[in-house]
Amino acid sequence: MAQKPSIPKGTRDFSPLEMAKRNYIFDTIKSVFLLYGFQQIETPAMENLSTLMGKYGEEGDKLLFKILNSGDYLKDAPEELLANKDYIHLITKVSEKGLRYDLTVPFARYVVQHRNDLQMPFKRYQIQPVWRADRPQRGRYREFYQCDADVVGSDSLLNEVELVSMIDEVFKRFGINIVIKLNNRKILSGIAEVIGAPEKIVDITVAIDKIDKIGLDNVNAELIEKGLSQDAIDTLRPLLTLSGSNDEKLATLKTLLVNSETGMKGIEEMMFVLGSASALNLKSQVELDVSLARGLNYYTGTILEVKALDVEMGSITGGGRYDNLTGVFGMDGLSGVGISFGADRIFDVLNTLYLYPADTIATTKVIFINFGEREAAVCLQHIASLRAAGISCEIFPESAKMKKQMAYANAKGVPFVAIVGENEMASGTIAIKNMATGEQNNCTVEEAIELLK
Amino acid sequence: MAQKPSIPKGTRDFSPLEMAKRNYIFDTIKSVFLLYGFQQIETPAMENLSTLMGKYGEEGDKLLFKILNSGDYLKDAPEELLANKDYIHLITKVSEKGLRYDLTVPFARYVVQHRNDLQMPFKRYQIQPVWRADRPQRGRYREFYQCDADVVGSDSLLNEVELVSMIDEVFKRFGINIVIKLNNRKILSGIAEVIGAPEKIVDITVAIDKIDKIGLDNVNAELIEKGLSQDAIDTLRPLLTLSGSNDEKLATLKTLLVNSETGMKGIEEMMFVLGSASALNLKSQVELDVSLARGLNYYTGTILEVKALDVEMGSITGGGRYDNLTGVFGMDGLSGVGISFGADRIFDVLNTLYLYPADTIATTKVIFINFGEREAAVCLQHIASLRAAGISCEIFPESAKMKKQMAYANAKGVPFVAIVGENEMASGTIAIKNMATGEQNNCTVEEAIELLK
Repeated sequence: MAQKPSIPKGTRDFSPLEMAKRNYIFDTIKSVFLLYGFQQIETPAMENLSTLMGKYGEEGDKLLFKILNSGDYLKDAPEELLANKDYIHLITKVSEKGLRYDLTVPFARYVVQHRNDLQMPFKRYQIQPVWRADRPQRGRYREFYQCDADVVGSDSLLNEVELVSMIDEVFKRFGINIVIKLNNRKILSGIAEVIGAPEKIVDITVAIDKIDKIGLDNVNAELIEKGLSQDAIDTLRPLLTLSGSNDEKLATLKTLLVNSETGMKGIEEMMFVLGSASALNLKSQVELDVSLARGLNYYTGTILEVKALDVEMGSITGGGRYDNLTGVFGMDGLSGVGISFGADRIFDVLNTLYLYPADTIATTKVIFINFGEREAAVCLQHIASLRAAGISCEIFPESAKMKKQMAYANAKGVPFVAIVGENEMASGTIAIKNMATGEQNNCTVEEAIELLK
Repeated sequence: MAQKPSIPKGTRDFSPLEMAKRNYIFDTIKSVFLLYGFQQIETPAMENLSTLMGKYGEEGDKLLFKILNSGDYLKDAPEELLANKDYIHLITKVSEKGLRYDLTVPFARYVVQHRNDLQMPFKRYQIQPVWRADRPQRGRYREFYQCDADVVGSDSLLNEVELVSMIDEVFKRFGINIVIKLNNRKILSGIAEVIGAPEKIVDITVAIDKIDKIGLDNVNAELIEKGLSQDAIDTLRPLLTLSGSNDEKLATLKTLLVNSETGMKGIEEMMFVLGSASALNLKSQVELDVSLARGLNYYTGTILEVKALDVEMGSITGGGRYDNLTGVFGMDGLSGVGISFGADRIFDVLNTLYLYPADTIATTKVIFINFGEREAAVCLQHIASLRAAGISCEIFPESAKMKKQMAYANAKGVPFVAIVGENEMASGTIAIKNMATGEQNNCTVEEAIELLK
């Protein structure tokens, strides 16, 4: 009953080579999280549907993977719904659990559930897969990792500064040149306020974003089409042509938003974050970008996004400040700020620029060729010594043809091969062959350790 | 619409403290896997139900978590089945995917699917959660991690020796004293053969296992009840009282199984593994145990199990050799040998004996007290210097009351607190307070790095 095996659409297997690269990415990010005092948590893959439903909009509810109840999942299903094939209303009858859709809602649930054990502010990071029943397409998967860091329970802008600094450190370690784009929801609210069109924020930011591509006249035409008045567009003009340094942009914004309390508060926050970041001499560019409008329904203060400078690629990290993370679970007033590293896109950038350190992929350092039982027994002793010195090694398990053993060593990308034949056994030595240069050295175990370390 | 948040039965949240301990466990095991030349893979949480169903027996099929198809999951459901609430036959109509139940079947599927990219023997390890709709109870969860290492595509007993050596190394690093119990399916087959009752293997091994508890006479009575002849029991007697060193046990077995070709082959294999392990001077006890009968329907050669010596606890690692891992997916003749570390039980053993190294739990090394904006700006500079030297540190984000800031430092278990007030700012120094001793030192940044490293 042979089956041709496959995996579900939109999911992936990760080979040893891909895992080595992914481990490099996650380990690098984790080590920076730790350096900044963030602590790891993990939550279950399955959450109660009552926790998940209604948190991601109607579309999000559809994209949740639901788990069929165990046993007789139809026992509570009303006959009428079954007869009508009313799959929508039957869902909560046949399913109580779903796979997590992101790490934010489970985090909010975690904070509320464990509130008595948490000391605020709580700086947590979480690196786990999430699942979405999206239509699979290039670069979009139904299972993918999110990699989030958040500080909740503190309104201080120092948290924003720390996150910006942390992003800088992560990409410095990766060797990826980036620009960190910053905006503030309060600046956007101020803009909408002064032009008297609060409901048009999204249209305005989309327009600002297009100015380089389609020019001022076309943007103006588009804004009129969207229902903005000529007055509003005139007020907006300095924003549409905003350029220069962060200080120059701030000066323009201050003039424009002088009568908006909210807008001026946003500018003040922005100045603090930019000023503090500047004092830290970051490697990354940090740029005020008023067209940045991610998570506009969600973020209430700072909004940030990271772009790689040397590759054409969407945002590779994003985040911002939010209010009331946990209100929906009955715990009000808890605000926070967080970022999410896009592991799959960082993987793509690192692959495109080939920025992996040489030792990322290295697995076994040396493979001992197997000439038979007597020789293998001697090899096992040598191997124990090398491993005690921290050198990763193995013996080919069969005394197969040399060609086969060398093919194995090559496939594994091993830098050295060790040979212990009659001569070496007699002299108590090991012949170590460098696979790149072909050079061969006859050494004692101690010399081999020296050579391979 | 406040909800009291909770998680599904049998699942767990992991707090920062628990994560630190779990990371220590997985990182230790991973570093040993690498030292022995094993390579990591990952497979998707969801597999096609056609991959999973029928692989774990009828009971296993019931314990699979099934994912409801997206969209109109009832569109292919026959009205008749719905009307009859025939939930069993409807499963494959409403669900195509399930959560993985173990790492073995996904691994077999992986090997077949990627056979053209794999160089045999393939030494893979995999550390991922699995899900089972078991009734939750103490120590049994519906989501738990498995931690497997296998070598496929090689019949060589050197693989068994390597796995035994690897188990020894892992538990040496944990500081857990263990006995590695070894048996061989061929020895058990030989025993069944010589007493003429091949179908009674399980009853016999159960009986052997009980002898210390209930005594020889009771065991004999039980075996007669199970249908063994007096002749068979007489033949079995030397086995039931098997004791002494491995060599002594082997001598008894050789006498008993001299006429069973399969049995003698098992003894030969056992002698090779025991002899090779003995030559490696392992720290662990290695013990031949003919009552060991785990995975009897699955394993075809070596069977192994690990017990902690200083804690009452079930097996903390197990494994063995199997034939034809991939036959069910249409690829015959691929045998292998593997082990699985029981992460949850190892976690319990380490907690019971408190064997965690002192730095397992350490998170932030030093927290800077926040006295206000001016002081904080200076602190950020110091913090950048400390982090550049690899020292994990942070600043309390608000200039809150000292008591609150110290409570945060205490809750986080931070060993040092740094104070930069008026005096320190004037002299360009940092006051570093040791939280354990109360000792306070006024240092330059360079001295602080020296002190904290």
